[in-house]
Amino acid sequence: MSEIRELYGASTGNSVRAAIALTEAGIEFTPRCLDLLSGDQRTPEYLALNPLGKAPTFVDHSVSPPLIINQSNAIIQYADEHAPGRLSPRGPSAQRYRVYDRFYFFVTDVIAPSHAAFFLRQIGQQNASAPLSRRALEHLMAAEAFLESEYIAGDAFSMADISAFTFTRSVRDQIHWEKWPRMARWLALIAARPAVKLGMQAFESKPSS
Amino acid sequence: MSEIRELYGASTGNSVRAAIALTEAGIEFTPRCLDLLSGDQRTPEYLALNPLGKAPTFVDHSVSPPLIINQSNAIIQYADEHAPGRLSPRGPSAQRYRVYDRFYFFVTDVIAPSHAAFFLRQIGQQNASAPLSRRALEHLMAAEAFLESEYIAGDAFSMADISAFTFTRSVRDQIHWEKWPRMARWLALIAARPAVKLGMQAFESKPSS
Repeated sequence: MSEIRELYGASTGNSVRAAIALTEAGIEFTPRCLDLLSGDQRTPEYLALNPLGKAPTFVDHSVSPPLIINQSNAIIQYADEHAPGRLSPRGPSAQRYRVYDRFYFFVTDVIAPSHAAFFLRQIGQQNASAPLSRRALEHLMAAEAFLESEYIAGDAFSMADISAFTFTRSVRDQIHWEKWPRMARWLALIAARPAVKLGMQAFESKPSS
Repeated sequence: MSEIRELYGASTGNSVRAAIALTEAGIEFTPRCLDLLSGDQRTPEYLALNPLGKAPTFVDHSVSPPLIINQSNAIIQYADEHAPGRLSPRGPSAQRYRVYDRFYFFVTDVIAPSHAAFFLRQIGQQNASAPLSRRALEHLMAAEAFLESEYIAGDAFSMADISAFTFTRSVRDQIHWEKWPRMARWLALIAARPAVKLGMQAFESKPSS
């Protein structure tokens, strides 16, 4: 672990995707666990880093002033640009834009409606949240067709796999896997990656020392 | 106009943002208007380009096979990478990641809840859509603090301005502008850009020839 880079986060999809991307890119960082139920994200210290009080926040102390990134997808872009070729193919190519296309598909057509559903549940609108959860799942089903090859956007692991992974895993008990043989194989493949395992564990609760 | 690159779209935020990004990047393209009410997005020809039947779709015939991009944000990335420096600063820097951070803020925290609200209205859930529309507007208000300088992410126009512009413009009648002096100035500044004006007009209905 390195004190030079820190990732504040919790065991949420946004934080875990950022942790996976940094780990896949070989960028060392110290995870800083936020206890969202205790309001760690609303302390003055954290709000100075992230004015909206959301997780995650990435801080890179190797530059002065420290670089602060709040958006999980911007952290993924940072990871991609600091380890060219690991999260997306280098240089403009059809393969590169397929990665972007599928990455954004999960960001805007799968994760976004699922976040909106979560927000509606938080404010007590259970019924209203259901169609948005269904929509996220329906869009996810479209991803079965993406898997002509081993990964979401072709023959190589990419940031598109990262954007697809945490949501798919979170709904794995709602899925009739016999209808989704490619997704089933893909989910097992991604879950077994060492960097994905490490990223998944970054914000697991540990006994306080 | 160039037949070498085509952008299929309609007068929706996603299509218009893509058109603005390509135009700001100096990439010539032919707009192909889809009449969504008539179902142009569900023809076999269009579904071959965009299996989910959504707008926009970008086709670059300068490569073989043609490059097809469906996600508006991936089209913006394409525009950025084909005109380095115009939509984001070159090379890793605090300034570059501020652009990404704010770009994604609008994509996931403003546009996404507003799209979820639109979807709920489409399926007749007006009441459920209201909290999501309010959430998009509340997040937009946070952007007033972004405008320490002239643009959303600093001293230069960037893709963050593109992601912020169409939504802000679409809710301009719901905003008490006297409380948002920076956003008011910024909206006028962006609306006056020649490339933004051209992008806004790309999919305006014209009498059929």
